[in-house]
Amino acid sequence: MTIKEQAAAMKLDSPLMAVTSAQSRNQALTNVVKQLNENQAQIFAANEQDLAEAQTNHIPEAVMKRLKFTQQKLQAVIEGIEKLVELPDKVFEKQFVRELDKGLTLVKETCPIGVIGVIFEARPDAMVQIASLCIKSGNCAILKGGSETKHTNKVLFSLIYQAAIESGLPKNCLFQAQLRDEISELLACHASVDLLIPRGSNAFVQYIMDNTKIPVMGHADGLCHIYVDKEFDLEKAIPIIIDAKTQYTAACNAVETLLVHKDAADKLMPKLMEAFEEYQISLCASRDLAEQYHCSVAKDEDFATEYLDLMLSAKTVETVEEAVYHINQYGSHHTDCIITENKETAEYFMRMVDSAGVYQNCSTRFADGFRYGFGAEVGISTGKIHARGPVGLEGLLTYKYKLYGNGQIVDDYATGKKTFHFRDL
Amino acid sequence: MTIKEQAAAMKLDSPLMAVTSAQSRNQALTNVVKQLNENQAQIFAANEQDLAEAQTNHIPEAVMKRLKFTQQKLQAVIEGIEKLVELPDKVFEKQFVRELDKGLTLVKETCPIGVIGVIFEARPDAMVQIASLCIKSGNCAILKGGSETKHTNKVLFSLIYQAAIESGLPKNCLFQAQLRDEISELLACHASVDLLIPRGSNAFVQYIMDNTKIPVMGHADGLCHIYVDKEFDLEKAIPIIIDAKTQYTAACNAVETLLVHKDAADKLMPKLMEAFEEYQISLCASRDLAEQYHCSVAKDEDFATEYLDLMLSAKTVETVEEAVYHINQYGSHHTDCIITENKETAEYFMRMVDSAGVYQNCSTRFADGFRYGFGAEVGISTGKIHARGPVGLEGLLTYKYKLYGNGQIVDDYATGKKTFHFRDL
Repeated sequence: MTIKEQAAAMKLDSPLMAVTSAQSRNQALTNVVKQLNENQAQIFAANEQDLAEAQTNHIPEAVMKRLKFTQQKLQAVIEGIEKLVELPDKVFEKQFVRELDKGLTLVKETCPIGVIGVIFEARPDAMVQIASLCIKSGNCAILKGGSETKHTNKVLFSLIYQAAIESGLPKNCLFQAQLRDEISELLACHASVDLLIPRGSNAFVQYIMDNTKIPVMGHADGLCHIYVDKEFDLEKAIPIIIDAKTQYTAACNAVETLLVHKDAADKLMPKLMEAFEEYQISLCASRDLAEQYHCSVAKDEDFATEYLDLMLSAKTVETVEEAVYHINQYGSHHTDCIITENKETAEYFMRMVDSAGVYQNCSTRFADGFRYGFGAEVGISTGKIHARGPVGLEGLLTYKYKLYGNGQIVDDYATGKKTFHFRDL
Repeated sequence: MTIKEQAAAMKLDSPLMAVTSAQSRNQALTNVVKQLNENQAQIFAANEQDLAEAQTNHIPEAVMKRLKFTQQKLQAVIEGIEKLVELPDKVFEKQFVRELDKGLTLVKETCPIGVIGVIFEARPDAMVQIASLCIKSGNCAILKGGSETKHTNKVLFSLIYQAAIESGLPKNCLFQAQLRDEISELLACHASVDLLIPRGSNAFVQYIMDNTKIPVMGHADGLCHIYVDKEFDLEKAIPIIIDAKTQYTAACNAVETLLVHKDAADKLMPKLMEAFEEYQISLCASRDLAEQYHCSVAKDEDFATEYLDLMLSAKTVETVEEAVYHINQYGSHHTDCIITENKETAEYFMRMVDSAGVYQNCSTRFADGFRYGFGAEVGISTGKIHARGPVGLEGLLTYKYKLYGNGQIVDDYATGKKTFHFRDL
């Protein structure tokens, strides 16, 4: 079967997946854990194969690191699934019940989105996490992992699929796309796929966004800012900036641009430059800072650059308003932070900055589904339509309106024979 | 200024619109009512001009009817705005407050989407309703109405804009695009426009969806079904089917296809054919029905046709499962109804049919923001991402995550020095 045929069959079966009981979806997840535990040898052998091929193909060190599936990563994945099992079921939750008129009741009820296509990077743990979130939320999923993990993913998928089927989930609940050219086939499935979640490099995500009619949830860029206000606490500012830059430099929620209030620079910069030297962070900055602290002068495009490296752009600003405008203009609407002791300035910044995450006095690296208490995430969305920020279970749900009547027709209300009374129950 | 420049300026000012007080937004709406009341002569004179030009251009009767702005329509619009003023403000509503750890608090808070582009049909009342919903929800809006209403819209827009500015809303809160070729310019504004809401013919909406990178909310088709189950009440079925077909035949929520359980046909069809004759409704049906009730035989494509006319396709089905599969395959995920006295069959149908509205025993014509008690609607969405069904104020909001800390860094949690405790407050 082609991806298109498979997706069409999945689409028609997706209501069957939606109405599976929470119990059987949780049972499937428990079975996944059992399968993973019992087949470790097979999983790690497949992973060795991927690693050997990666070495032959001279895959970069950073990718190799993500590719390697360790005992520790397996245990983390298993703990994640166990947490997911414990999370309450959100499928078919009533968001409101409204009597429109006597005997005519409107119910707004959550339901799974349907068919979700996920294209993700070469990380074996991603396969398990994403499949688990889709199972828990009652969605069907087409999964396409990075080709460097093909042996590991094949084993993992077959274990997950077996666990799902044994727990009574419908046979079209999960499907693995294994070939690279299947991505373009998947992008054309707008008749059957309700939502695409691409993860990977900026260029890759942008390519997906530009080449499909399917709604896409995710982010291309993660250009995060920290603004140090004039009323800041130095003891908080330095560790936050260092953590946001160095704790995982290649992450989308790492900081890329530092904005400094002109009255904060003299207190902040000397200490910060010491820390930058210690952590080997290079700086390019607006002319005033560059001259005083001996670094290169930032060009306009530097403020639009996501370095994903030990690099940072910096700039002084006259006011918090200027900082907000800079962030809204150059940022990627991902996560931006203000360092200030002034509550009102913080509130102004957090309301005015048009980003999924707006922080006061903490590291931008907190932008993550696990750290938000969502159990897991399928990705982080910088879109403003539907889900925003880290996307957990709720982002995989939509809702429908159910209207229960006993023969009501609109003409009676249009002609004034009857009137609505709108009473929320 | 070009639309692109105007949209970019609006985008940068959209946070200013978002943080206006509920009071000033309501004041603006009250001022709109005042302006409309005081300038009736000017409005109706402009409308006469549009009507005269429409007559010269031989505009179809149906469009002329929508175009004509009567005293009655003006009063309905004013009542709508007054209801909108009374609705509670939903901007900056906390959806949850979660302590991640001591002194680290995550707040999920609603906020306006930002810049909304609305392209709507030649109806003067649409201009006022849409602008009012955007004002109430704190969104900036670019409004493009049908060119046949250009004189009326020009007057209405200037009255609304004046009311908004006098109430202290930012000068870039509303913008009117007046020329037809400005639509393609607007479609290219993905850097500045957060959401597009097109209204109009199926072909027009489909064109918009295919030609922009901006998220689009709305619907192209409205192919609604009524399924008459074997356990149905004839007294309810006939008026519901007639209302759903005739109450406003050209509406998206009118019924187009009738599915009849094989054991319901003998009881339903004779009475229904009488009613069809009375209301001059033509039928094309599956061979069994066509032969027995002397109508044309439906081809496969008839079940994929939105007639928007006094026409109906009909088909017998063996089971409710077959009805569900037919609807999910041929339908447009708009609104579909089951007529049954059996609660379990109803619940099965309503869970399994993958549509924004799933009804039991009432007309599909109830799919409407006003009838759902939303006060007004900007449109009806058949998408499953973000808003679904009639879209009122809540569909014009998104949310952001605000994280309040006092120096927290991620490394402390990554190394196990600190742990999250996730407590919802």
